[in-house]
Amino acid sequence: MAVDSIPALDLIFGRRSIRVYRPGAVDDATVKRLLQAAMAAPSAAAKYPWHFVVVREQPTLARLAEALPNGSMLATATLGIAVCGDLELAHDRQLSYLLQDCSAAIENLLLAAHALGLGACWLGVHPREERVRRLTAILALPRGVIPVAMIALGWPGETKAPHQTYLPERVHSERW
Amino acid sequence: MAVDSIPALDLIFGRRSIRVYRPGAVDDATVKRLLQAAMAAPSAAAKYPWHFVVVREQPTLARLAEALPNGSMLATATLGIAVCGDLELAHDRQLSYLLQDCSAAIENLLLAAHALGLGACWLGVHPREERVRRLTAILALPRGVIPVAMIALGWPGETKAPHQTYLPERVHSERW
Repeated sequence: MAVDSIPALDLIFGRRSIRVYRPGAVDDATVKRLLQAAMAAPSAAAKYPWHFVVVREQPTLARLAEALPNGSMLATATLGIAVCGDLELAHDRQLSYLLQDCSAAIENLLLAAHALGLGACWLGVHPREERVRRLTAILALPRGVIPVAMIALGWPGETKAPHQTYLPERVHSERW
Repeated sequence: MAVDSIPALDLIFGRRSIRVYRPGAVDDATVKRLLQAAMAAPSAAAKYPWHFVVVREQPTLARLAEALPNGSMLATATLGIAVCGDLELAHDRQLSYLLQDCSAAIENLLLAAHALGLGACWLGVHPREERVRRLTAILALPRGVIPVAMIALGWPGETKAPHQTYLPERVHSERW
């Protein structure tokens, strides 16, 4: 089969950041499937240092939206998922591994959301100190647990064309 | 459709770290498709700070295998792809964003490899100083370009069952 027409790749190219949501419930089974997908990501030395805080209560979503300059859509999202890393669990207690592991899990979660027909958007939290501080307070995170990102989720209220990006200047052969 | 039987999710759950490879060419069109998938990942403030070094020459793969304690399979891989981040390109020149963006791209690349029938393994490089130093030398990376990981790739010589992990103790409702 030509590599331009593999259906499984459509999932990857079709995922876009969705910032507008329609009203509509997202049931617990769907949320569990998203989290399973996140947990299927690889992790340095199989340490799996992530934790997930699922937020459905609108007043909390509104507070999170207010805490994140890029996160106003959280106030209208059906739910949000805070992806956090526990530095004590990370390989060699290294922040780098924590960030890598959480980011791979987030990408899986975003792709699973797209596969299930949901729209999602990755909202950066770390390394912004003010955002980390406010999310830590709102979500009552214990010491050593770092909020890496918030994911806004809901049924999509906008559509976007698949990704087409290819930057040949970022590809090197054998060496730089 | 029940959320346990969405075909697109099979890609995510079926991807495993493959460390044994069969001989067999991987053509340039396939490699380009992998890199397109990597480039379809989201990036903080749309900065896309990644670079990719595609290594096919066996002597270089052998040197990379020798430089990475976890990377012996690189010597028998058909190719390797070094995923690097340029700190000058990263959002606010922050290492955290560089690592998050590169990790999301890596996860897409691994999933695309699985979709195309290839086997792949994520080999950590950053933050190990010795590994960063040796890869920088072997690949002639310029100052400010950080090798985050090497990806070993080839036609799979082993099979593994899909992921089933779900850790309920890592999931919190509304707050920690």
